[in-house]
Amino acid sequence: MKKRTALPLLLAGLLVAGGSQAADPYAKFKELFKPLPAIAPIPADNPQTEAKVELGKMLYFDARLSGDGTIACATCHNPALGFTDRIPRAIGHGAARGPRNSPTTLNAAFLTSQFWDGRAPTLEAQALGPLQANIEHNITLDKAIAVLKGFPEYQKRFAEVFGGKDPVTPDNLAKAIAAFERTLITPNSPFDRYLAGDESAISTQQKKGMKSFVEKGCVGCHNGPNFTDGNFYAIKVPGSTDEGRYTVTKKESDKHAFRTQTLRNVALTYPYFNNGSVWKLDEAVKIMGKEMLKTDLSKDEVDDLVAFLHGLTGEMPKFTIPALP
Amino acid sequence: MKKRTALPLLLAGLLVAGGSQAADPYAKFKELFKPLPAIAPIPADNPQTEAKVELGKMLYFDARLSGDGTIACATCHNPALGFTDRIPRAIGHGAARGPRNSPTTLNAAFLTSQFWDGRAPTLEAQALGPLQANIEHNITLDKAIAVLKGFPEYQKRFAEVFGGKDPVTPDNLAKAIAAFERTLITPNSPFDRYLAGDESAISTQQKKGMKSFVEKGCVGCHNGPNFTDGNFYAIKVPGSTDEGRYTVTKKESDKHAFRTQTLRNVALTYPYFNNGSVWKLDEAVKIMGKEMLKTDLSKDEVDDLVAFLHGLTGEMPKFTIPALP
Ligand code: HEC
Ligand code: HEC
Ligand code: HEC
Ligand code: HEC
Ligand SMILES: [Ca+2]
Ligand SMILES: [Ca+2]
Repeated sequence: MKKRTALPLLLAGLLVAGGSQAADPYAKFKELFKPLPAIAPIPADNPQTEAKVELGKMLYFDARLSGDGTIACATCHNPALGFTDRIPRAIGHGAARGPRNSPTTLNAAFLTSQFWDGRAPTLEAQALGPLQANIEHNITLDKAIAVLKGFPEYQKRFAEVFGGKDPVTPDNLAKAIAAFERTLITPNSPFDRYLAGDESAISTQQKKGMKSFVEKGCVGCHNGPNFTDGNFYAIKVPGSTDEGRYTVTKKESDKHAFRTQTLRNVALTYPYFNNGSVWKLDEAVKIMGKEMLKTDLSKDEVDDLVAFLHGLTGEMPKFTIPALP
Repeated sequence: MKKRTALPLLLAGLLVAGGSQAADPYAKFKELFKPLPAIAPIPADNPQTEAKVELGKMLYFDARLSGDGTIACATCHNPALGFTDRIPRAIGHGAARGPRNSPTTLNAAFLTSQFWDGRAPTLEAQALGPLQANIEHNITLDKAIAVLKGFPEYQKRFAEVFGGKDPVTPDNLAKAIAAFERTLITPNSPFDRYLAGDESAISTQQKKGMKSFVEKGCVGCHNGPNFTDGNFYAIKVPGSTDEGRYTVTKKESDKHAFRTQTLRNVALTYPYFNNGSVWKLDEAVKIMGKEMLKTDLSKDEVDDLVAFLHGLTGEMPKFTIPALP
């Protein structure tokens, strides 16, 4: 399914074509990109409803779903911090530090697999992982369900959303959280407005950065509306010993391989890489050039790329903090 | 200044007067209460401005103001949880559990002293305490100021709000947070609407509860718009060994004395008492009767009092989660 691939051929093809666009030197590069849809794909077995999203939002913020009552999804995927925690590696239950950086939940709804190593196929499958992880929420599913059942308001809301005789189940808990996460979409970034025809939405430096992003080969992996091809590539970021995708597949070729990260809102999701070892975006870009493309990017190229990446910060989802029972 | 007092005389006086109100049996009790103002008192040396409140909100939510980058004011005074953490005793830096329950920051702007033992006179004086406490944020003020200075956006906002050559100071940090806290006011509770003339805003049971609240003597300590006289009273709540006010004054009469708690939003601020030892409001009320008034309240009296207290939940402050730099 997912595997280490050579740089896609689309790139080479497109750079050869499109020679006659003298009027706009950036048009042929622009064509390679897709705007972020305002709505995430919705699976058939978990349709969005307003009540389900509201319930999911409550669960996302509810710290009682943890061993000591202090850790919620929003602790590590904090709306104030770009839906991350902005520390190198997550700190969870008992102040234990985990091995990996907390990725943003923004636009996770567009990913074709979840976690740095892609071990969960969907948001629904993902959601129950952190609850049980002992360095994250550190609670058993039985305990989590018992906590929820202790609140008549949760009982009522699960019944309204899911119906059935015993609606407070792990499955429905995961569905509600996933439904909320599908609202965490950030459309209308300056770059999306540029793609939609507003030439002045990004600066000339940003357009140059877009050109470098294509010509240097970044777009070979960071492509599609969410700037990730969903594939896994071996990389040794500074300080990392993490075996990555290998821990899931046990294939030698997956050793130290990680899923291409989204670059949407990347200006907000520092520090960078699977172990959060790099604080500055320019440094992360330089490392990408070196590690993934065997290129030493010049200072100007890095600056242009960073400017371009800043144009990928979209409109944050707007919601009020839920009042929990 | 603050001291252990006998039950105020106002109570006895008022119950004797007002005998001719046959039309409304609750009128004379109602007269004893004051609605919560929609605006908190503002000190002359820290005027409210929109930009200051916005800056204070950012600081309130900013977990980088802590030793390991995970603990903000909003962690323990969490807007989703009635601006508390809803655990018995606060858990802070390094997952250490402190000795006391986190009180709500809602309406703290109306208090005449801060902390269970009243050791801080104002919100400004209070704010720097938790930052430095090693079981809370666990950061030095020097470090906190250095963190803030690391963000050009904070530099800019402090300069805009406070002016001067070096505006990022502990003093201004405290002022901004206090200004934000002064917006955490919850007016228009059902009981306030009743006081304003809407007879149907609370039920007959709640009116009976109000009557008991006066007749039994609760109002002797829980009075004024914020339902606290600001005085300190010795009490041994279950499991407590805390010496309370004594740790501040070293007066024998202040041993185990705590400031009368606000009862505004008390339905949201469980668990109760200085050590969070009691989860249920009916139990807390029963204990109050026994400990403070040497009375065994009947089941009906307790139920009415609890119904009354539920009427003190006001409108929550509305704000969007800040986007931190
Ligand atoms: C203690 C910190 C912490 C908590 C609490 C936490 N997460 Fe995470 N989250 C992480 C880390 C770290 C990863 C990456 C783990 C990995 O790749 O092995 C992650 C990965 C994810 C991903 C995958 C995103 C991607 O880009 O692959 C999603 C979605 C997610 N979390 C949602 C949630 C939800 C929903 C909850 C609550 C039920 C939650 N998280 C609780 C730290 C946390
Ligand atoms: C061969 C695939 C590939 C190419 C080419 C590539 N990347 Fe990446 N990129 C990845 C993978 C995989 C990661 C995740 C690495 C990790 O954290 O372990 C990543 C991570 C990043 C990050 C960090 C994101 C974060 O949130 O941590 C940035 C920034 C980035 N890439 C930018 C670029 C730029 C700019 C280029 C071109 C100069 C580029 N990438 C080329 C695959 C690629
Ligand atoms: C780790 C948990 C924790 C953190 C973080 C925390 N607090 Fe508190 N807060 C408490 C506890 C516990 C008390 C009561 C302490 C006492 O009485 O000795 C308290 C007391 C207060 C009070 C007094 C309220 C009253 O009723 O007397 C205010 C106001 C307050 N905190 C605001 C803040 C602000 C502002 C911040 C951030 C700068 C903050 N707190 C950070 C737990 C916390
Ligand atoms: C002599 C003063 C006094 C009287 C009378 C009194 N209280 Fe209290 N009340 C206090 C003090 C002091 C506290 C804080 C105790 C602690 O936590 O250590 C408190 C706490 C409470 C709490 C818990 C609040 C919280 O958030 O933890 C409730 C509920 C309460 N009182 C209700 C009542 C009711 C109802 C009555 C009458 C039946 C009453 N009180 C009578 C002084 C008094
Ligand atoms: Ca990151
Ligand atoms: Ca409490």
